[in-house]
Amino acid sequence: MSGQAPNPFNKKILATAGPTPLPPRVSSVMSEPVLYHRDPAFAAIYERVLNRLPEVFQTSNDVLLFASTGSGAMESAVSNLVQPGQKVLACATGKFGERWLQLLDAQGAETVRYEPGWGVRIDADEVDRLLTENPGCEVVFATLSETSTGVVHDVQAIAAVAKKHGALTVVDAVSGLGAAELRQDDWGIDVVVSGSQKALMAPPGIGLASVSAAALDRAESQPGGRYYFDWGRTAKAQRKSPPSSPFTAPVTIVSALDVALDMIHEEGIENVFARHALLAKATRAGVAALGLNLYGDPDERSNVVTALELPSDIDGGKVPKILRDQFGITANGGQDDLKGKILRIAHCGYFGAFDILTSLAGLELTLETLGHATQLGAGVGAAQRVFLDAGVSVTA
Amino acid sequence: MSGQAPNPFNKKILATAGPTPLPPRVSSVMSEPVLYHRDPAFAAIYERVLNRLPEVFQTSNDVLLFASTGSGAMESAVSNLVQPGQKVLACATGKFGERWLQLLDAQGAETVRYEPGWGVRIDADEVDRLLTENPGCEVVFATLSETSTGVVHDVQAIAAVAKKHGALTVVDAVSGLGAAELRQDDWGIDVVVSGSQKALMAPPGIGLASVSAAALDRAESQPGGRYYFDWGRTAKAQRKSPPSSPFTAPVTIVSALDVALDMIHEEGIENVFARHALLAKATRAGVAALGLNLYGDPDERSNVVTALELPSDIDGGKVPKILRDQFGITANGGQDDLKGKILRIAHCGYFGAFDILTSLAGLELTLETLGHATQLGAGVGAAQRVFLDAGVSVTA
Repeated sequence: MSGQAPNPFNKKILATAGPTPLPPRVSSVMSEPVLYHRDPAFAAIYERVLNRLPEVFQTSNDVLLFASTGSGAMESAVSNLVQPGQKVLACATGKFGERWLQLLDAQGAETVRYEPGWGVRIDADEVDRLLTENPGCEVVFATLSETSTGVVHDVQAIAAVAKKHGALTVVDAVSGLGAAELRQDDWGIDVVVSGSQKALMAPPGIGLASVSAAALDRAESQPGGRYYFDWGRTAKAQRKSPPSSPFTAPVTIVSALDVALDMIHEEGIENVFARHALLAKATRAGVAALGLNLYGDPDERSNVVTALELPSDIDGGKVPKILRDQFGITANGGQDDLKGKILRIAHCGYFGAFDILTSLAGLELTLETLGHATQLGAGVGAAQRVFLDAGVSVTA
Repeated sequence: MSGQAPNPFNKKILATAGPTPLPPRVSSVMSEPVLYHRDPAFAAIYERVLNRLPEVFQTSNDVLLFASTGSGAMESAVSNLVQPGQKVLACATGKFGERWLQLLDAQGAETVRYEPGWGVRIDADEVDRLLTENPGCEVVFATLSETSTGVVHDVQAIAAVAKKHGALTVVDAVSGLGAAELRQDDWGIDVVVSGSQKALMAPPGIGLASVSAAALDRAESQPGGRYYFDWGRTAKAQRKSPPSSPFTAPVTIVSALDVALDMIHEEGIENVFARHALLAKATRAGVAALGLNLYGDPDERSNVVTALELPSDIDGGKVPKILRDQFGITANGGQDDLKGKILRIAHCGYFGAFDILTSLAGLELTLETLGHATQLGAGVGAAQRVFLDAGVSVTA
């Protein structure tokens, strides 16, 4: 319109760690006609999804599917494995670790709490010490990727310690699954819970629980107090031929997940892990080139989301708002105590090199706008260099 | 292809009582780019949905939204209102009434069971008698539309009896909401639970609970044993400005529900009730013209799904299969004990006159195919007559 300034930031860009952007194939399948959840045409889709999920978890377990978010799948682990008064250990070093504590408190568990502080990496030796000092913990709860801080924990080491003490291990991999390396069976993890809306490249609305035989047995030996999230009920339905769901399946999201799992299968899970590792490496390089620090205690495993400390000479609380309202990028700032202190650059799911460059460019523009002296292009350039040095290309 | 028989039944027709067919506007919105659930653009959609839901329930309550199916919303009512050992009464005259019993058993309630048999209408006088004989029942559970039998119950009368005895009333309106008349506040119903995938014309994945202040108070006075479905937590988030969800919202389904509620609002809830009543009346006329009986004890309230008894001279178990595999119509047969005995013709949600004629025509073709002497067109004709006699048209 005449007299109006041009707006080149007219595109809305989703750059959060969940919900994440969907591949076009995934988006479009949801507008196809709805299928009846007991129809053979849907049963075929359901079966394909259930058959493909174990590869992503690297397990031979049943992967149980719930119409819920990832938090519902977390609740399923608590209500199936823990009866009121039972003793467990939970690790919490961020918002989602704390969700385990809240769920366990609501359930009336006697919880040994390992809370070394936000952003800290879980120390398996500390878990070992706590389990020794507090004998009788029957389940250990931990987090693969703590989305609030960007830290990916060494759940393999935690599971090994838990096993030594005769405890089951439950891992929240809501944001981590399909982004950070996870080998459930090799690493001896009894239960991994996740959700559809992060690295699985589908919309929110499916919660997943990959449950070992030992965990299923424990659940079945302790019935009561649960129904919707009861593992036994869902496992029984899923083991039918063709597999079924005890309640109405969220058919549009299952169809979306089917397409997304097809894409993950085509790319290959090892390639998926490697792509996330490279995206994270480039992000970290870009952040460093801008003279910014990573938040907390991340390392080369932190491939889901990169949390960076915002410079102290600006009002950090404005960063997500400027990014969104001025430049069109929806990204995550800090949660709870970290509000205004960090920005999180997501790279879990349907993310590629240019998404990282876009996020870094948006960060540069925002810092400069807020008065933090910034060399425009420096972060982008450093990330580009990482991609080039990796020697990869579309056809590589 | 040369030599192949023509197939005029090449279209797939969804005619189930949930998931129900979606209006094109609802389907297409789901393939738009995913929004971050904390983004102002999504918050505006969420607020609109939460503001419009009370009209459908005919309430001034908070309507709480969960990422779950309707069964999850049912579980929320049980886990928020009933602690183990508390005394309640539950009415069950079909599969979904029995779900209340199963949920209450899982919760450890002391349940007075009113089970007069499948297809029977709940008798409020019997409820009165049972509450008198079993003093101390604190909550009464009932069903608006029993999808398994087609019977719509007089929940107004049940709520009045419960109130007389000082009990709260909880109504499962998963299939009934927006199809059968329901006036929550006028009828004094404390809690109505529902789901997105029936008359609300959205895909499965949202559970709803419309909760009175008295019910919320009871829940808050009895904390513990729940987290994901905790009403207080969800109410607190939804009462923020703008409203929020405690966990990731199922954004694609919320957007779909937003469009569907817009359509319901445009049509007007009274017109929606009247349309369903007319569709049901025409269906009943069609069934009668084919010489078939309705199942159970339906009356003019049974506007959600019409259950008809299949003739005894055919193998009723084959009816849904022939309808689907030969004629392309996915419809519901009977569940559990009613398998092979009934067919259910759905008319809840995005259904119009020609959908009823299609279902009746499919039924006629199927009966004839299975060897039951059928006057093709007789059921269709009777239904047409009802529509014409109603004096309605697109522009009326």
